[in-house]
Amino acid sequence: MVAIDEYLAIVGESEIDGIKQLAGLIKGEKVVHVNATPYGGGVAEMLRRVVPLAQSLGISASWQTIRGNEEFFSITKRLHNALQGDASVGISEGEWKKYHDIAEFNSSILSLDGDVVVIHDPQPLPLINFKKGGKWVWRCHIDTSSPNMGVWSRLSGMVNMFDASVFSMERYIPKDLEIQALIDHPTIDPLSPKNEPLSADQIEKVLLRYGLDPERPIIGQVGRYDPWKDPIGAIKVYRSIKSEMSSVQFVMIGSFAKDDPEGSEWYNKTVSFAGKDKDCFILSNLDGVGDIEVNAFQRGFSAALQMSIREGFGLTVTEALWKGVPVVATRAGGIPLQVIDGVTGFLVSNYEEAAGKLRHLLKKRWLARELGQAGMRHVRLNFLITKGIMDYIRMHIELVGKSKATAR
Amino acid sequence: MVAIDEYLAIVGESEIDGIKQLAGLIKGEKVVHVNATPYGGGVAEMLRRVVPLAQSLGISASWQTIRGNEEFFSITKRLHNALQGDASVGISEGEWKKYHDIAEFNSSILSLDGDVVVIHDPQPLPLINFKKGGKWVWRCHIDTSSPNMGVWSRLSGMVNMFDASVFSMERYIPKDLEIQALIDHPTIDPLSPKNEPLSADQIEKVLLRYGLDPERPIIGQVGRYDPWKDPIGAIKVYRSIKSEMSSVQFVMIGSFAKDDPEGSEWYNKTVSFAGKDKDCFILSNLDGVGDIEVNAFQRGFSAALQMSIREGFGLTVTEALWKGVPVVATRAGGIPLQVIDGVTGFLVSNYEEAAGKLRHLLKKRWLARELGQAGMRHVRLNFLITKGIMDYIRMHIELVGKSKATAR
Repeated sequence: MVAIDEYLAIVGESEIDGIKQLAGLIKGEKVVHVNATPYGGGVAEMLRRVVPLAQSLGISASWQTIRGNEEFFSITKRLHNALQGDASVGISEGEWKKYHDIAEFNSSILSLDGDVVVIHDPQPLPLINFKKGGKWVWRCHIDTSSPNMGVWSRLSGMVNMFDASVFSMERYIPKDLEIQALIDHPTIDPLSPKNEPLSADQIEKVLLRYGLDPERPIIGQVGRYDPWKDPIGAIKVYRSIKSEMSSVQFVMIGSFAKDDPEGSEWYNKTVSFAGKDKDCFILSNLDGVGDIEVNAFQRGFSAALQMSIREGFGLTVTEALWKGVPVVATRAGGIPLQVIDGVTGFLVSNYEEAAGKLRHLLKKRWLARELGQAGMRHVRLNFLITKGIMDYIRMHIELVGKSKATAR
Repeated sequence: MVAIDEYLAIVGESEIDGIKQLAGLIKGEKVVHVNATPYGGGVAEMLRRVVPLAQSLGISASWQTIRGNEEFFSITKRLHNALQGDASVGISEGEWKKYHDIAEFNSSILSLDGDVVVIHDPQPLPLINFKKGGKWVWRCHIDTSSPNMGVWSRLSGMVNMFDASVFSMERYIPKDLEIQALIDHPTIDPLSPKNEPLSADQIEKVLLRYGLDPERPIIGQVGRYDPWKDPIGAIKVYRSIKSEMSSVQFVMIGSFAKDDPEGSEWYNKTVSFAGKDKDCFILSNLDGVGDIEVNAFQRGFSAALQMSIREGFGLTVTEALWKGVPVVATRAGGIPLQVIDGVTGFLVSNYEEAAGKLRHLLKKRWLARELGQAGMRHVRLNFLITKGIMDYIRMHIELVGKSKATAR
C-alpha cells in the first residue's frame, strides 16, 4: 500500500500538502477504472500505483480488467493500430459484433457503479453502451491525432457517448471529437520496482546475470516488440556505433503484453535480425526480465535510445531520464515533451543522426552526465506520479464537483 | 544580493520557511565577521555568500578583512601549519610580537562593535586582546586536533579569552580547550559562480580553451598547491591510471591565496614533476582559472581525486559531489563525512588504491553516475548554504539569546 507521504523526500512538503488538501474535497467518491490487462504496458503500470495512492487519500478507487479471448485481443490490437493511423486496418462486421459482444459480457461481470468510471483505451470502449449511471470518461493513452477514418467513424460514435475524454497530449485529440477533452500527461512512480533506487551491487548482478560486461558502455532501448518502436532500426543504430566504437554493447528490452499477439512475431524478427553478435542482447519477460531488471538495466545504460515511429507518451523515456540517463530519441508522440534537444538528450530524425549523437554522448562523459541531470530535474518537476495524482483529483472535481461528503 | 527565496527550487519550501522563522528571532542583530583575505580559499568564499544572505534575512551582518604585510602572512601561514600539526614550526619572540602588533594596528582601523564578532582562523586571532564588547567567537576552519603544542600553548591563551569557539568537526576541538565549542560543518552555495548550473557549451568552451579534449575522460584534483593537498601524489595516481588507460587526461587546479607564500613554491614543484606530459594540465588563477572555470572543469571531470593528507573540511570535495561527480579521496579532515565509501565515491589509503578505484569508475560509467547522484543528494541534505545559514542563526541564538528587537 503506497501512501502519499512516502514521496515527501522526493517532491517536497508543499506539493504533498497541496495534494492532501485537494483530495479532501472528494473524500469517499467512488472511481472505477477499467482497462484491458493487469500487466504489461504503461497503462497497467500507472493504474497499479495510482489506484492505491488514490485510496490512501480517501478516494474510493477500484480497478477492473476486462476478459477476452485471443480473437478479441487481435481485433483490439488492430483497432489500436488503426487509431494510431494504420490505414491498412479493416474490421469486418463480424469483428465489430464480436467487439461489442465481449463488452456486453464484461458489463455483466464487472461492477461499474462509480461516481466516475474511467475506461482506458479502445479495448473496453463499448462498455459505454451499457452505462447505467455516474460520469463516464474515456481515457485514451494513444496517439489518435490522425486515425484510420474508416475505423474511427465507427469508434467515435461510442466515444461521443462519454461525458468527457482525457488524452495524453493536446495534439492527440481527434478533430471531430464532440465531447469535452482534458489533457493529462502520463507519469511514473519513483518508488515503483521499475524506478526505485538500487544499490550498485544489485545493478551489477543483473548486468552480469544476462552476460553483459559492466566495464564496457551499454546503449539500450526499452519498449514492446512492435513495428511502432522500430526495434530493427534501433539495432541498425547500434551497428553504426559499433563499427567505430567496438566496446559498445546493446540491450533491447521488451515485454509481451497479454493483448499483444504481434509481440512474439516482432520479437522473433528482432532476434533474427540481431544475429550472432555477442554484444547485442535481445531480452524480454521470457528471459526473466521483470521490473527490477528493467530498472537495473536502465541504470546500467550509458545512454538510452528510443527509435519509436509512433508513441503514446513514451514512459520508457521518462524512466530513463528519471535515472539520470540521457536519451537519444525520435520526435514521436510525447517524446519531445521529455527529451529537450541538447538539454535532456537529443532528438533525431534518422538512424545515422541517432548513432552520431550516441557516439557523442559516449565520448563526452561530462555531457552525458549534465544532460542526465537535467533530465532528472525535468521529470521531477513534470512527470512524477504526484503530479499525476494532482491532475486526477482536479479532473474529478471538474467532472463531478466536490463530493457529497464534503458538501454535507 | 542573494535572497533566501532563490534557493526554493533547490531545497524546498519547508526548509526556506524554517530559516525565515528562525531569522525573525534575531532581526537587526549586528554580526561582524573578520578574516584574513577577501578571496582564495573556502573561508572567503563562504563569507562572500553567507554575509549577504544573512543581511537579506534582516540580520545586520558585515565582513572585514585584516591588513598585513608579507612577513605577517608568512608567520600566520606557519601558525596555520603548526595548528595542523607541523611539529617543525617554531615562532620567534620577535614574530609573536609582530603577530600581536599587526592585530593591534587592525583593531584600530576595523569596526568591531557587534552583538557577535566572529574571528576566522589564526590570522586575526590576537584581535581578542582588543575586545571592547559583544560576544566573541573564534571560528576555526582547520584541523586542530593534534596541534604543534609549542605554538598552541601560546595561541590557546588567546583562544580561551573568547566567549565560544566553532569548529568544522567534532574531532578538531583541541583537548585542552577551556571555552564552549560548537560544531558547524562548512557548506557550499549552489548559486555561486563555482557551483551554478552551466550550459554544455560553457563547459566545453572552457575545456577547449585550456587544451583539453572534451571527448576523452578527465580526472581532476582541485586544491591549493600545498604539501597537505599532495599534488605530487595526485600526479602519481594519474600516471598509474594512464599507464593502463592511455586516453585519460588529468587536470590539477589550484589558486594562490594572498596569505599563502608557499603556494608558488609548490606550484613550481608540481609543474616540474608533471614534466612534458601533454595530457597533464597544471593550472592556477595565473592561467585565468576563476570560479566559473573551476565550475566548468569540475563538471567536465569523469571522476574527481582528492589526495589530501590534511584537510579542513574539503569543500572542493563538496563541490564535486554537488555536480554529480564521484570522488576518490583520502580519509583526511572532513572528507569521510562527504565521501561515503562505495556510495558517493571511494575512500583510499594510498596511490595504487586511488588509481584502482578511478580506473573502476572510468570503466563502469553506470557506477560513476549512480555514485555521483548519491553524492548530489548527500550534499543537498547536509552541506548546502541553506543548512549553514540555519546553523549560523542557531549559534547566534545560543550565544546571545533572541534579539532585543524581538524581546521588546
